[in-house]
Amino acid sequence: MNLDLTTLDAYCREAGVDGYLVDADGEDATQRYLSGFDAPDPYVTLYVRDGVAEGEGGSTHLLVSALEYGRAAEESRGDSVERGSAYDAQRLVEEYGQHEGSDRAVAAFCRAHGVESVAMPERAPLGPAEGLREQDIDVTVDRDDRVERVRAVKTETEIAHIREAQKANERAMARAEELLREATVEEGVLHHDGEPLTSERVRTEIEIALLHDGCALDETIVACGADAADPHDRGSGPLRADEPIIVDIFPRSKSTGYFADMTRTFCVGTPTDRAREWYDLTLAAQEAALDAIEAGVSGSEVHGAVCDVYEDAGLPTLRADDAAETGFIHTTGHGVGLDIHEYPRLSTQDNELEAGMVVTVEPGLYDPAVGGVRIEDLVVVREDGVENLTDYPKQFDIDV
Amino acid sequence: MNLDLTTLDAYCREAGVDGYLVDADGEDATQRYLSGFDAPDPYVTLYVRDGVAEGEGGSTHLLVSALEYGRAAEESRGDSVERGSAYDAQRLVEEYGQHEGSDRAVAAFCRAHGVESVAMPERAPLGPAEGLREQDIDVTVDRDDRVERVRAVKTETEIAHIREAQKANERAMARAEELLREATVEEGVLHHDGEPLTSERVRTEIEIALLHDGCALDETIVACGADAADPHDRGSGPLRADEPIIVDIFPRSKSTGYFADMTRTFCVGTPTDRAREWYDLTLAAQEAALDAIEAGVSGSEVHGAVCDVYEDAGLPTLRADDAAETGFIHTTGHGVGLDIHEYPRLSTQDNELEAGMVVTVEPGLYDPAVGGVRIEDLVVVREDGVENLTDYPKQFDIDV
Repeated sequence: MNLDLTTLDAYCREAGVDGYLVDADGEDATQRYLSGFDAPDPYVTLYVRDGVAEGEGGSTHLLVSALEYGRAAEESRGDSVERGSAYDAQRLVEEYGQHEGSDRAVAAFCRAHGVESVAMPERAPLGPAEGLREQDIDVTVDRDDRVERVRAVKTETEIAHIREAQKANERAMARAEELLREATVEEGVLHHDGEPLTSERVRTEIEIALLHDGCALDETIVACGADAADPHDRGSGPLRADEPIIVDIFPRSKSTGYFADMTRTFCVGTPTDRAREWYDLTLAAQEAALDAIEAGVSGSEVHGAVCDVYEDAGLPTLRADDAAETGFIHTTGHGVGLDIHEYPRLSTQDNELEAGMVVTVEPGLYDPAVGGVRIEDLVVVREDGVENLTDYPKQFDIDV
Repeated sequence: MNLDLTTLDAYCREAGVDGYLVDADGEDATQRYLSGFDAPDPYVTLYVRDGVAEGEGGSTHLLVSALEYGRAAEESRGDSVERGSAYDAQRLVEEYGQHEGSDRAVAAFCRAHGVESVAMPERAPLGPAEGLREQDIDVTVDRDDRVERVRAVKTETEIAHIREAQKANERAMARAEELLREATVEEGVLHHDGEPLTSERVRTEIEIALLHDGCALDETIVACGADAADPHDRGSGPLRADEPIIVDIFPRSKSTGYFADMTRTFCVGTPTDRAREWYDLTLAAQEAALDAIEAGVSGSEVHGAVCDVYEDAGLPTLRADDAAETGFIHTTGHGVGLDIHEYPRLSTQDNELEAGMVVTVEPGLYDPAVGGVRIEDLVVVREDGVENLTDYPKQFDIDV
């Protein structure tokens, strides 16, 4: 995949820096995006802006450990891959200690590419940044994370990667729903294979389905009752009939690194009137958000559409009361890509949506006395609306 | 688990700071250790040193999002848990923008605990650190990562967590070995269930075994032939007879967060004389390293013992030539805990081993013409030697 780094290049020029430096491991989405590489320990990627090397366009260079050198040379999208020995790193570490030795090697690597000043991302590591300054490389903090902004607008190749992860997600959700449908109820508790059906059991089956589909496992949420009333509780113990069960799955493709994200809420048996009302309201809130999304709209308008639905129904939201502990107590959505939570946000913030962004739309309601309800789709922002990447029914009731 | 933060407290006093501030998500080992909490988005943990609040000892405080508040209050080891609304974060963000608004809220949180100056870890985020300085909180970089040093020496509870993850690791390794033992050979390629047995298939079976044991899956290495000659290649495609197959598994317990780590090398059929010689040398090198470990010894002495064995046999090492691309091209080992790679290192660095540290001992040899061989055990450093946490045979040959 070829990256369009025009925006990053323009930012470097505007910020008056020669390059953009990333020091992180391959789990870091910006590192993976710029380097096209993935390694478990930190390595350095340097984008050199257009014109810094006379007569040459922008270029990307990696500095990796001996251990990663062969693989990086083969797999990364760097115009060059170098290792510490090219800058005498081992001797520098022996002479100046681990940190200063490494800072000196990275500074030499920058200078070798004509770079005397760099910007680094908002969450770049503090020690190496200050160390570079001590080696007279000027370091600017890019607090708005320009690479995250660049990453936010996906190419069709990236969207295809996300769509593929979402298909795996749907197969895993189907496996979870199958377990719930097969369950019997004994004294209010779901049973399967003669044993209580637990959050843990459903989660394991989801994760096995994802593994077979080549997806890595972050945490999965299968939460019922009071557990489900806490949006980040992963859930534990036996699942109960007549209570909403939130299933939230966010797998990452092992081969491409891209995430998907989807939530459904089920109720085996008969939901209370309140739970059913909440489910229907949440469906309406999601519909309002999906209707509001198109290129040019602000994320805050989409979030506002959801808050309006809930507030009109007399329910608390964080927008109305930032200390609310029940009701709609999170944001409406977030970007999804090489990170599970990335720019833009569908929140009170003014993030302008652009065509090609991929975002979740996930309104929900929470109260320990009722439980939790959340419905989440993954969509692409298009010029005139959304393309929904999610193809999974929204069916609350499961008959016993 | 109660933490002994005497060393951290002494460091703060010595560095002349009122506290130690961590801004990271729960995947970050230092964050998880200090906060006793795990959340997918960044949050702030502040250790306030002894005496900063008059008449009070050291204490730990968390600042989390509304979304994590309930769970943090219940699960974390913080003496207090607060959320942004206590510092008017939403209004500050509206008035000053996302970054400065958040910096102001964190600075107010520090001041509320009497803290005007903090140290932050080597890899703390640059933007928030500079933002705190702009709010007149003095920030010092702790380049030697004192919390990582504190984490390096494990309590017996932590060792029990690692031992448990290691048991799961052994069951997963047994599953991998079982597949290799059941394999038949057709035209030099291993077969199982009538199909070629691939790296991917073995990896999936390992990962399923770990899932059933409550372990999360980081990458697993199942590599054969030239793949295995690159120590970080995860391996792909059909496994072949008569070639060394490296299986390196490093699971993390989902409940405790602690890792284990183990590698075995197998050969189904008849290894070449060279591969067998390498295996025996690597066993001898590991034995030499295990013999060298005890409290008070430097990691560099242990690494030296391994290099001596290889160099005496005429094989290249990175110690002898830092541009070596074949032979022993990594370090001898690393600490294991809440991080898979942590302090101390068994390398050319002078890291003094202390009783209670948990380290890997993993010599290996690599050459695309031969393949790769690595044998890795996980051990506890004790006063007078090692306690080996690994109970798995070192058996190279598997008969067909």
